[in-house]
Amino acid sequence: MKAEILYGFHPVYEALRADRRTFHEIYISKQTRTQRIERIRLEADRKNILLKEVSSSKLQAIGGTVSHQGVMARVTAYPLTDTADLLGTDWSGSRLPFFLLLDQIVDPHNLGAIIRTALCAGIDGVIIPKDRSAFPTPAVSRISAGALEHMRVAQVNNLARFINTLKDQNVWIAGLDQNAGHSIYAADLTGAVGLVVGGEEKGIRPLVKKKCDLLISIPQSGPVGSLNASVAGAIAIYELYRQRFVSKNA
Amino acid sequence: MKAEILYGFHPVYEALRADRRTFHEIYISKQTRTQRIERIRLEADRKNILLKEVSSSKLQAIGGTVSHQGVMARVTAYPLTDTADLLGTDWSGSRLPFFLLLDQIVDPHNLGAIIRTALCAGIDGVIIPKDRSAFPTPAVSRISAGALEHMRVAQVNNLARFINTLKDQNVWIAGLDQNAGHSIYAADLTGAVGLVVGGEEKGIRPLVKKKCDLLISIPQSGPVGSLNASVAGAIAIYELYRQRFVSKNA
Repeated sequence: MKAEILYGFHPVYEALRADRRTFHEIYISKQTRTQRIERIRLEADRKNILLKEVSSSKLQAIGGTVSHQGVMARVTAYPLTDTADLLGTDWSGSRLPFFLLLDQIVDPHNLGAIIRTALCAGIDGVIIPKDRSAFPTPAVSRISAGALEHMRVAQVNNLARFINTLKDQNVWIAGLDQNAGHSIYAADLTGAVGLVVGGEEKGIRPLVKKKCDLLISIPQSGPVGSLNASVAGAIAIYELYRQRFVSKNA
Repeated sequence: MKAEILYGFHPVYEALRADRRTFHEIYISKQTRTQRIERIRLEADRKNILLKEVSSSKLQAIGGTVSHQGVMARVTAYPLTDTADLLGTDWSGSRLPFFLLLDQIVDPHNLGAIIRTALCAGIDGVIIPKDRSAFPTPAVSRISAGALEHMRVAQVNNLARFINTLKDQNVWIAGLDQNAGHSIYAADLTGAVGLVVGGEEKGIRPLVKKKCDLLISIPQSGPVGSLNASVAGAIAIYELYRQRFVSKNA
């Protein structure tokens, strides 16, 4: 199985906590003694994971130019979630699913940032297309502050077709589109929802847009009318959160 | 007067539109012919600004390693706004002021990202402290996608003391604090408000926190409970926006 090198405190620590990857070994720097690294040492001990104290130059040799904060780990590849597992969850209870579909987010920074926000907002799964999308690499894990290690991420060949599958399961599809006349604040987003967020430059592709039940926009004032993709995603995700989880009287 | 080099399309174009800096000269790359650069050429012509077509290597020599997208400009220093001008605006109409106070945001990326969001949400002014804060540099202008060129940014020696001044003017101070029991969704943020957002690692300093009328937090679920500083700022800014500008029935 393909191995990966996670680097930095949060990715390694959250991967230990999430328990979804197999750890081959953890490397910590001899020169760096921090409380955070001690927390990793404790977790590694408890889980019987091989932990090697190495020199900073050795860490550098393993990781290249990455900023490793004195800790790295050789682990199995990122565990993508099967779409069947996402859809197979029992949603019959009081809780309705809230999925995030990312249409061609190519910048790893934006992917990591959105996944970090998505985890904080309790999103049930993130779906990315196989082509023209950033992939959940160790760099994305780092940018997400380790949130990637907990989040369920599924990869699909064809996002438009997967939207059909979601619709068959009574998931309502809302696309975030800067030019949409409908405001995120005017839409009812309390049901089973798949929120589609488009890429940095061009937004959601026309073919995917056509599949959306509703297009919604974030109202913007001022002379420069364009939010960053991951910020726009965050604002929309939290408006869904507010509508779903915050009491009307709050 | 100190000159600065703006680089990239948005900073140069928005600085031209905002008309707050004096342009000494604009450099465009001989090799790059894009519609966006043509828009800059038109604006420069209209404003009688010297425009030089130079080689890419010459641009590189002027700007160093920055990603210039074929355009740079030598301009006067960033025009900070006087706090007296911020406060002196006539707020007696229907519109109440909404200020953003950044307590030790040191990462230029976060500063640029927050200013971009702030401009989109119609914030009336951003206040930063003199010490331990990122400064509105050309890099910040670039990260803000040029939003910095339009936004009013004031610098104060002492943020806690400036909060007193704001309070004297009946501005209500809300501090964004991850540990606050009060949710942003439960607070009434419709009046004259100063929203305080703290730095990346430690949040708002205790002395500044004490000055806040109320501390508010963004509800978070899931195993990793921490939003990125600029994302948390964006979510809070837009909740203020929603409460202030979106009709209750929307």
